[in-house]
Amino acid sequence: MSKKKIVIALGGNALGNTLEEQMQAVKTTSKAIVDMIEENCEVVIVHGNGPQVGMINNAMNEYHDNHKETSLIPLSVCGAMSQAYIGYDLQNALREECINRNVDIKNVSTIITQVLVDKNDKAFQNPTKPIGQFMTKEKAEEAKKEKNWDIVEDSGRGYRRVVASPIPIDIIELDAINALSASGDLVICCGGGGIPVINENNHLKGVPAVIDKDSAACLLAKKINADMLIILTAVEKVAINFGKPDVKWIDKMNIQEANKYCEEGQFAPGSMLPKVKAAMDFANSKDGRVALITLLEKAREAVKGTTGTIITK
Amino acid sequence: MSKKKIVIALGGNALGNTLEEQMQAVKTTSKAIVDMIEENCEVVIVHGNGPQVGMINNAMNEYHDNHKETSLIPLSVCGAMSQAYIGYDLQNALREECINRNVDIKNVSTIITQVLVDKNDKAFQNPTKPIGQFMTKEKAEEAKKEKNWDIVEDSGRGYRRVVASPIPIDIIELDAINALSASGDLVICCGGGGIPVINENNHLKGVPAVIDKDSAACLLAKKINADMLIILTAVEKVAINFGKPDVKWIDKMNIQEANKYCEEGQFAPGSMLPKVKAAMDFANSKDGRVALITLLEKAREAVKGTTGTIITK
Repeated sequence: MSKKKIVIALGGNALGNTLEEQMQAVKTTSKAIVDMIEENCEVVIVHGNGPQVGMINNAMNEYHDNHKETSLIPLSVCGAMSQAYIGYDLQNALREECINRNVDIKNVSTIITQVLVDKNDKAFQNPTKPIGQFMTKEKAEEAKKEKNWDIVEDSGRGYRRVVASPIPIDIIELDAINALSASGDLVICCGGGGIPVINENNHLKGVPAVIDKDSAACLLAKKINADMLIILTAVEKVAINFGKPDVKWIDKMNIQEANKYCEEGQFAPGSMLPKVKAAMDFANSKDGRVALITLLEKAREAVKGTTGTIITK
Repeated sequence: MSKKKIVIALGGNALGNTLEEQMQAVKTTSKAIVDMIEENCEVVIVHGNGPQVGMINNAMNEYHDNHKETSLIPLSVCGAMSQAYIGYDLQNALREECINRNVDIKNVSTIITQVLVDKNDKAFQNPTKPIGQFMTKEKAEEAKKEKNWDIVEDSGRGYRRVVASPIPIDIIELDAINALSASGDLVICCGGGGIPVINENNHLKGVPAVIDKDSAACLLAKKINADMLIILTAVEKVAINFGKPDVKWIDKMNIQEANKYCEEGQFAPGSMLPKVKAAMDFANSKDGRVALITLLEKAREAVKGTTGTIITK
């Protein structure tokens, strides 16, 4: 039986807030991923980077503020660094889990990945994604002038930088990801949704933005012609009427049903909605493609079809 | 004619001290590397990371000192981040140069690379490689106690952390590097000599150390069965009697001659000596293997055999 090709999207929050938490979290994560490999799946891993790129970005900004002779490190470069910060730990934990369970993987590797976005994406006109620390009004005005940041006031909690969240349109290192995966490697890529870049006459320029990692995972899954996109999150199944007495956990929904729930406002924006949207996008892209939303620890069962929410065309 | 397989070792200093300098430096570097590709070479790139990991390490330490609730990021993780910090810029510059010159490269990619060292390497008993900022005696004693750092006094300039520089013994992501290179990719790997790890019952543990990048490049060149190891540096040729009236620039030397010069103390430790040693190690490892030391800008001529210092068995 040929292997089922799967792209997994892991939440950045599931990887912990500190390095110590991350080093523990990658162990749990690796168990779940190797479970899937044991179920005859060829897996490519995409992960979020919210807390991690936040920390790196804060540290780099503070260092520049305290030592003006050093460079102000752009968010795109912080994103690149977060791919290594997470990838290094995750690839080690996966390697260890594979060896300990005698699972045959050639290598686990992390590819620094850039994801192309459109400079005319309308998200750039209305940046909404908060990043970094809260600031006083003074600091905010300084940052606006000196660093050219977009800043918003967060009701009562101070001021914060916001960046755009544009739509991913291409994966620059796609061939490398394909080559590695084809050679039997377990590949970690598109970390944090990828480093967002725009194309200016063959020059890829990093932009201050954050790409939704589920959206990047969906694009990757389409590009590598995966059979399945699995979005791992904090709940076992998607719910409608969530938090109400008539809550209903969904086993399966097609695009039509999912659209109806979206229109009803069943899914929280910035939380379940982008996951459902990415799942729908993948399921709708080609006959036979299936998306699945479930809990990290339930990944093996979900692959077998016994839990999670399945989204089909 | 089959392609000549070459590992290039690039100096970290050649990549600049700030991000702005790096973004310029990678352009020059890319020109030289694409020159070699045009000369029918299959190239794998190793680079140093001295100034870059220094900056990241300083920023991470300072952030932890100012926010004790955050993690103290170990040097090994800073090393991983430096691979992305450099690789992201370098892969972009290379990609752009290849496209602009119509050179057929499938992808340029950066692989986060760990390099195995021996926990009993005697370098760990006598750490000598300075890293990070100068400290006052007070700060030094605090760091010794709180962070378990090895500290030395630098005559008159204050106190500084030192780490070991162990011998690289294996490249963990070797299969991935081989698979990518075989698929036609231009690969950047073993950045900064690789993330130094020791093996503890299948668990790879990062250690506070710095691997000499020329030594790592030599190991990689042997492992991937390269034809040539090119160490790019600040001089066109290796010299004997350097700085003296009877200075002699060497076109070619064999192991025996190189050994004699080493014994005479012709090459500065920490500068030309490790380069010559890595070159000798590679040339001596198998018949037909050749090492070359030259200036970045002379890479094309060096590949053609018209300049640089050639080291043969």
